[in-house]
Amino acid sequence: MRRYEKRDFPVEQIRRFMEPGPIVLVSSLYRGKTNIMTMGWHTVMEFSPSLIGCVIASGNHSFDMIRRSAECVINIPTTALMKEVTGIGNSSGRDIDKFQFFNLTASKARHVKAPLIDECFASLECRLFDRCMVRKYNFFILEVVQAHVANSPKHPETLHYTGDGVFMVSGKVISRRRQFKPEML
Amino acid sequence: MRRYEKRDFPVEQIRRFMEPGPIVLVSSLYRGKTNIMTMGWHTVMEFSPSLIGCVIASGNHSFDMIRRSAECVINIPTTALMKEVTGIGNSSGRDIDKFQFFNLTASKARHVKAPLIDECFASLECRLFDRCMVRKYNFFILEVVQAHVANSPKHPETLHYTGDGVFMVSGKVISRRRQFKPEML
Repeated sequence: MRRYEKRDFPVEQIRRFMEPGPIVLVSSLYRGKTNIMTMGWHTVMEFSPSLIGCVIASGNHSFDMIRRSAECVINIPTTALMKEVTGIGNSSGRDIDKFQFFNLTASKARHVKAPLIDECFASLECRLFDRCMVRKYNFFILEVVQAHVANSPKHPETLHYTGDGVFMVSGKVISRRRQFKPEML
Repeated sequence: MRRYEKRDFPVEQIRRFMEPGPIVLVSSLYRGKTNIMTMGWHTVMEFSPSLIGCVIASGNHSFDMIRRSAECVINIPTTALMKEVTGIGNSSGRDIDKFQFFNLTASKARHVKAPLIDECFASLECRLFDRCMVRKYNFFILEVVQAHVANSPKHPETLHYTGDGVFMVSGKVISRRRQFKPEML
């Protein structure tokens, strides 16, 4: 599998990758063990600080790991990882070491202990910013403290889950830049 | 512009349309006036009750209308409404009547006073479910109380905003149903 070399990317611009709603792989580390989960319920919440809100159901092995370590990495895969996205979403870190089982490469993050996944074209280091909604809605408000993004492809083929085992693949790109007011871009 | 005839759709299955992250048009009504805004920061939060969380910046004319009426409709457009999506996102209901200006058809919802937009293939009637995050994050937790969805197209060409005036259009569809555990679908 291709491993991406990534460059630093401005955290206040990560909507570029997160707003269109890709399925993501969330990596975590707690008490010396790593884990990965597949996640689709997330939204950008603020530019600066760079905030992402996401639902991590409490039944997930990652739930306690992220709640307790207060950190994770959001990694964005392309269609090349279709098999891993499905496999990771249909297995539990209680039973297997997902990095090993799915043959993914964990590399060191800069500001958090959770590992980056080299096979994803973008990795966002996140710290738990606000836990006030965790108990009531399993909703984590994360701050992206560091973003790593590959230089190419410019428009990666991301996967977008629609439920029922069906994914939509990102398609062509349309620019309407000239029709935007500068402050609305 | 094509107007869609829509059928009732189970509210607990609206992830089908919302999870892949489409740009949406939010219609509202307050004190006899309607409005429409373009929105991209949203996530599914729960199946039942059917919850959607979304950010509506407080500078938007729709912010107070939705906060005060505690209702809105989330309408999902296709690429056929590219011009309207951009136009609505770059104008304010303070200055124009958006239904009139953009020549869109408001029709009566069943459970809320805010109007449906007939030119969108799906319309979700929403009630404000929890306002605890509105002040701190402009984050509205909405309950979808009624969903209206056109029978075709089955996989509408939705728009997914990536910032900077650039939209990604939904592409091909991949089913991996057989690789899912039944409880994970």
